[in-house]
Amino acid sequence: MGKLLIVGSLAFDAIETPFGKTGKILGGAATFIGLAASQFKLESAIVSVVGDDFPKDYLELLKQRDIDLSGVEVVKGGKTFFWEGRYHNDLNSRDTIQTQLNTLGDFRPVVPKHFLSADVMMLGNLHPNTQLSVIQQMEERPKLIIMDTMNFWMDNSWDELMQVIAKIDVITINDQEARQLTKEHSLVKAAAKIQEMGPRYVVIKKGEHGALLFHKNKIFFAPALPLEEVFDPTGAGDTFAGGFSGYLTQAGNISFDSMKNAIIHGSNLASFCVERFGTERMQALGEREIKERLMQFKELTQFNIELT
Amino acid sequence: MGKLLIVGSLAFDAIETPFGKTGKILGGAATFIGLAASQFKLESAIVSVVGDDFPKDYLELLKQRDIDLSGVEVVKGGKTFFWEGRYHNDLNSRDTIQTQLNTLGDFRPVVPKHFLSADVMMLGNLHPNTQLSVIQQMEERPKLIIMDTMNFWMDNSWDELMQVIAKIDVITINDQEARQLTKEHSLVKAAAKIQEMGPRYVVIKKGEHGALLFHKNKIFFAPALPLEEVFDPTGAGDTFAGGFSGYLTQAGNISFDSMKNAIIHGSNLASFCVERFGTERMQALGEREIKERLMQFKELTQFNIELT
Repeated sequence: MGKLLIVGSLAFDAIETPFGKTGKILGGAATFIGLAASQFKLESAIVSVVGDDFPKDYLELLKQRDIDLSGVEVVKGGKTFFWEGRYHNDLNSRDTIQTQLNTLGDFRPVVPKHFLSADVMMLGNLHPNTQLSVIQQMEERPKLIIMDTMNFWMDNSWDELMQVIAKIDVITINDQEARQLTKEHSLVKAAAKIQEMGPRYVVIKKGEHGALLFHKNKIFFAPALPLEEVFDPTGAGDTFAGGFSGYLTQAGNISFDSMKNAIIHGSNLASFCVERFGTERMQALGEREIKERLMQFKELTQFNIELT
Repeated sequence: MGKLLIVGSLAFDAIETPFGKTGKILGGAATFIGLAASQFKLESAIVSVVGDDFPKDYLELLKQRDIDLSGVEVVKGGKTFFWEGRYHNDLNSRDTIQTQLNTLGDFRPVVPKHFLSADVMMLGNLHPNTQLSVIQQMEERPKLIIMDTMNFWMDNSWDELMQVIAKIDVITINDQEARQLTKEHSLVKAAAKIQEMGPRYVVIKKGEHGALLFHKNKIFFAPALPLEEVFDPTGAGDTFAGGFSGYLTQAGNISFDSMKNAIIHGSNLASFCVERFGTERMQALGEREIKERLMQFKELTQFNIELT
């Protein structure tokens, strides 16, 4: 089985959407990535840090998915990363009410020995130096390094971010971030510029408007599944990344056709994530409904025009 | 050959985009619909009105596409409908600088005898009473009546609009208009409500974010082709409608699979329209590049996930 190394936050989230409000619940990029990737046949590990306020139940929940947590540092007397946010009515934008970095501020990732030769590395959104440190620890370069990032690092750690971007194979960012990174409005032009910075593959996430995959002169597009109601978008991007990286780890194949399928699997899993608060839907998700929804994705996008 | 009856404006447009500015050029819904539909094997006619300021060359251009113009009234001493608009930098929104209804204000459409038994009717955006008058003139109900409309009629002629909507098979509107029509933010819910108003098929155009087709519990999605640069979006929606209605007239088949193909053909032709000002690109468009771009649409959207 292929090995997937996941690096990212384990966190508390507090979320308000037009549909309601949560207390502190389980969140964090690595959590969503790990839950999504666990739908595939692979070995996975999370590298992260939490305080000793992080419930054992949360760690147990991930362990039950056969996710190796030996790379998760529990800081005695430390507090876990906390994010609180409120979504606007259309759920396309949100305000951060507070971010408490806590133990994540001093995070020194250590890759477990068993994963120093991982096949695929999924770097969740973190300080670029943290991402770089993980890449440098590997015994051999993974076949595929995928990286998520965000505008915050473009604003505050440009040089460090560029160093990481030069070393990866796939970047996943949203449309606004792609524009900020390249000063290009056209996503086609932006994706071309980003490929010159390092990554051979550029995935641009457009939320409810789907996701684009760029590689040389090839483009693939997957829509978001049209839903009656999006309940809470938190974690959708990370769930997408988990499905994307999880599928590729299982497939052991990084052809463009395989990447296409990975985009669809990522979009498919993300469509479940947004149906409930936090990780609720992803925790309860079964194989059968995943397949049924993949069938919906086919019906949504596949057509038959003969070209002679 | 199937017969397509097109009802809509022939117009002068003056357009400003970040890429430049035109004088008065050929525009109008019926123009774009006609040019797009002429790419298919069919008989077509336009019902419209112009003033005698409308250049003979413009009419000649449409006649050369084998479009029957016997239903185009030329009002002596009258002036042709004129629209002037300026697009914002992202080209997703625009300001209307002036609209001169002119002869279109008193338009009394008369369907040519030869088209009183048309197979497909494409009603471009016009006063709902004008659209209704055309439906009532038909000797037999067309197999398919497709209607485009806009927020202006929702604001100003709600009751008349509802009368037309009750009589048609397919409505094509944009996402904001679908929301305004139904007071639903979710497009899935909006499409369901619109189907209760009359049309069995709802096409929601999302501009650069593609188009959705809804029918009962079925959904199909076509992306807009990602382009390096959108030059001028004017007429893209009408070109889409022309490709959609033109394909269905040629196919003589209104199954859901046929509708899917129609959506792709419409999206494909619209992707050309936006590459130049006004009708420039559509006038020069050849069969071979249309096929090549259809191939790009396949590559953009088709994947191969086996579900067992």
